[in-house]
Amino acid sequence: MITEKIPYKIYLNENEMPKAWYNLRADMKQKPAPLLNPETHQPMQASELAEVFCKELVAQELDDNTPFFEIPQDIRNFYKMYRPSPLVRAYCLEEKLDTPAKIYYKFEGNNTSGSHKLNSAIAQAYYAKKQGLKGVTTETGAGQWGTALAMACSYLDLDCKVFMVKCSYEQKPFRREVMRTYGACVTPSPSMETTVGQKILAAHPGTSGSLGCAISEAVEKAVSNDGYRYVLGSVLNQVLLHQSVIGLEAKTAFDKYHVKPDIIIGCAGGGSNLGGLIAPFMGEKLRGEADYRIIAVEPASCPSLTRGVYAYDFCDTGMVCPLSKMYTLGSDFIPSANHAGGLRYHGMSSTLSELYHQGLIEATSVNQTEVFEAAEYFAKVEGILPAPESSHAIRIAIDEAVRCKESGEEKTILFGLTGTGYFDMKAYEKFHDKEMEDYIPTEEELAAYRKNLPKVES
Amino acid sequence: MITEKIPYKIYLNENEMPKAWYNLRADMKQKPAPLLNPETHQPMQASELAEVFCKELVAQELDDNTPFFEIPQDIRNFYKMYRPSPLVRAYCLEEKLDTPAKIYYKFEGNNTSGSHKLNSAIAQAYYAKKQGLKGVTTETGAGQWGTALAMACSYLDLDCKVFMVKCSYEQKPFRREVMRTYGACVTPSPSMETTVGQKILAAHPGTSGSLGCAISEAVEKAVSNDGYRYVLGSVLNQVLLHQSVIGLEAKTAFDKYHVKPDIIIGCAGGGSNLGGLIAPFMGEKLRGEADYRIIAVEPASCPSLTRGVYAYDFCDTGMVCPLSKMYTLGSDFIPSANHAGGLRYHGMSSTLSELYHQGLIEATSVNQTEVFEAAEYFAKVEGILPAPESSHAIRIAIDEAVRCKESGEEKTILFGLTGTGYFDMKAYEKFHDKEMEDYIPTEEELAAYRKNLPKVES
Repeated sequence: MITEKIPYKIYLNENEMPKAWYNLRADMKQKPAPLLNPETHQPMQASELAEVFCKELVAQELDDNTPFFEIPQDIRNFYKMYRPSPLVRAYCLEEKLDTPAKIYYKFEGNNTSGSHKLNSAIAQAYYAKKQGLKGVTTETGAGQWGTALAMACSYLDLDCKVFMVKCSYEQKPFRREVMRTYGACVTPSPSMETTVGQKILAAHPGTSGSLGCAISEAVEKAVSNDGYRYVLGSVLNQVLLHQSVIGLEAKTAFDKYHVKPDIIIGCAGGGSNLGGLIAPFMGEKLRGEADYRIIAVEPASCPSLTRGVYAYDFCDTGMVCPLSKMYTLGSDFIPSANHAGGLRYHGMSSTLSELYHQGLIEATSVNQTEVFEAAEYFAKVEGILPAPESSHAIRIAIDEAVRCKESGEEKTILFGLTGTGYFDMKAYEKFHDKEMEDYIPTEEELAAYRKNLPKVES
Repeated sequence: MITEKIPYKIYLNENEMPKAWYNLRADMKQKPAPLLNPETHQPMQASELAEVFCKELVAQELDDNTPFFEIPQDIRNFYKMYRPSPLVRAYCLEEKLDTPAKIYYKFEGNNTSGSHKLNSAIAQAYYAKKQGLKGVTTETGAGQWGTALAMACSYLDLDCKVFMVKCSYEQKPFRREVMRTYGACVTPSPSMETTVGQKILAAHPGTSGSLGCAISEAVEKAVSNDGYRYVLGSVLNQVLLHQSVIGLEAKTAFDKYHVKPDIIIGCAGGGSNLGGLIAPFMGEKLRGEADYRIIAVEPASCPSLTRGVYAYDFCDTGMVCPLSKMYTLGSDFIPSANHAGGLRYHGMSSTLSELYHQGLIEATSVNQTEVFEAAEYFAKVEGILPAPESSHAIRIAIDEAVRCKESGEEKTILFGLTGTGYFDMKAYEKFHDKEMEDYIPTEEELAAYRKNLPKVES
């Protein structure tokens, strides 16, 4: 029931913006499995986690029952600087596809960090500041998270130390420069600044680094320095909580125009964007108030949901972090050099993993050349140059819209457009020059990684 | 008189967006001087201009009397894809500066071309399409105009041929890649594709090109190919007309909240952004309905308004284009290698030149290191990474706000934030590494260029 013409872009007013984050887990009957101590295999206690993470974030991490967390006024003020993000009706895309489907996307790229990552970065930095800390440490691969955290820390006058995977540091000097603009200290990882970095450099001179190594360095730096904590941009419950602002805004915008999406699509790496986008919709689904088809899209080269196993595994390659029960390819899985750096993660948010396990979410995987075809098509038709990560969702949204054309169904599709691709033009160049390849791990390769999963008694 | 709290960002509704462009010249008693034929020194006739430009654009170019031109529905539809742009109240900046001034900026960077250039690119492409042309040619330096035109042509299925100054082509491969994403053919200039390019390469093997040469190549390509015309992203009356959408939106947004700016600030290269931003405000000023202080900001390294002369000069270095009466440094003036590529132009819009000559606009110039200080400060405080060009306006807006603090005046300041700096990180890097220099041409240098101005009897 559409009562008035939907604008191209729906912007909420300031007074319509969410005042609380929504904690999806509160409505799950079967909760996600708890984090385990990697040595004792016992559930991680708040006191243990508080050595690495800020206190209030630990509380959010472990709380499976509180449905809403009030967004502190300071964070809401920061959100006003770049939010609300528009809910866009893709009229041009619909026309070009000649589909009866109605396509919407929630566009999170209109901020300098270029993605949705800022929603959680400001929250994590805020709680660090509130705790009286001097600063935070983190790792970054593609650089979106590092940029977002640098912006948040600059705003709050917190020190920000980023370990950037060395190959990214060298290949993406402009991302690094944005972080420097925001006053962050960016170190290529592995580095000589940490014990673990020194060990790795000694064992593998000339290595170009990995996300796992950068995590280990960032954690070591945090726990070995007074007044510092470690922060992470995805996977964790707290991150999904903060990212619920995406879905809450989208739902409010839809409700204003009496629109209900049939299909919700998001790319999935660690799960922060998808978990945030679907939060209030999944809440309705869990409470039996509405039904939605929800599709997670991942790269065929890093298919944790579609080809991984549901098991306890390390969150990091260095195996220093807690164990999380999730769909995983094994913590030593090294994804091929695909261009969606934000989706190159061996595991998946434990909440999304449990929802997938319960059959409440579908998952599909796509090849990167198909993804870039969709990206370029979308850029031309809708005028936004999408990030490679976001383009995974575009690919499936287009496929679903084409399916609607074939079947004549007028479905309403919502997808998450997480960010822009301005710092990914090297990938676009490869695509234009037909030098882009698709990588699909073989069954044998995946089986080999699975063998290394930690043995946890269930 | 402020009747309600001003939101951080004011977005107009679709039905509040401008339906017509405003032609500032209609309200000028003393009109800008006409373009002259470079050989006969007689006013350019429509028929002469139509060999190079689209017919309807020629009509817009020469019309000093019609106050409003209806924006065709197709262009308004395209505008809806990325407009309205937000009018932002810079609460954070005001707080940080501790100023009683109220600061607003009209942010034009939230589109893939990264700047306001798209406003005129779609209009020019539209009229080319309407005339049944196959395509358009243009030149680009920094790449913002080329990107915008590529996007517009892609949307309308027009061929787009861009001559990109060779040093930019090599230094900014990512800008080039964005244009390729939109299907544009990008050629480093000078090239072997044109007679003028061949001549220049023969005379100066290994030259890294210049904007003047690229213009000459683009014009030659247009006039020597059936079904093509040449388009230009600034300087011309038609461009200022299209860009009036910026000022019209800003004025509507202000009027909604009963706010009236005291000072309006814009960077000025060829004048497209400043001319568009001030249009409706200057209209009121010309009609005696209101008064505004208007400040044009230019680089100290390319000071056409502040240190140029008001005289007839060539619009291009190649001296093939018509003569325009404007503030100019001489068409063979080569600006130093500053990082605001969009402001490296020897002349200025004839309309803005005439307004400046009449004392209706002020002008000031700033050094690039001061500009980047302001840029970084603004990025940290307001969360938007500005383009070097835009940062000229930021610099003066901050200076004026600080002056208000000293005097205790509660002035309302509006400035144009024309674009984002994602493709300018090399410049930011130089600034961070303290390798950025300021260049100010000496009086002797400027005098030498002035000697080469064409002799036109007035």
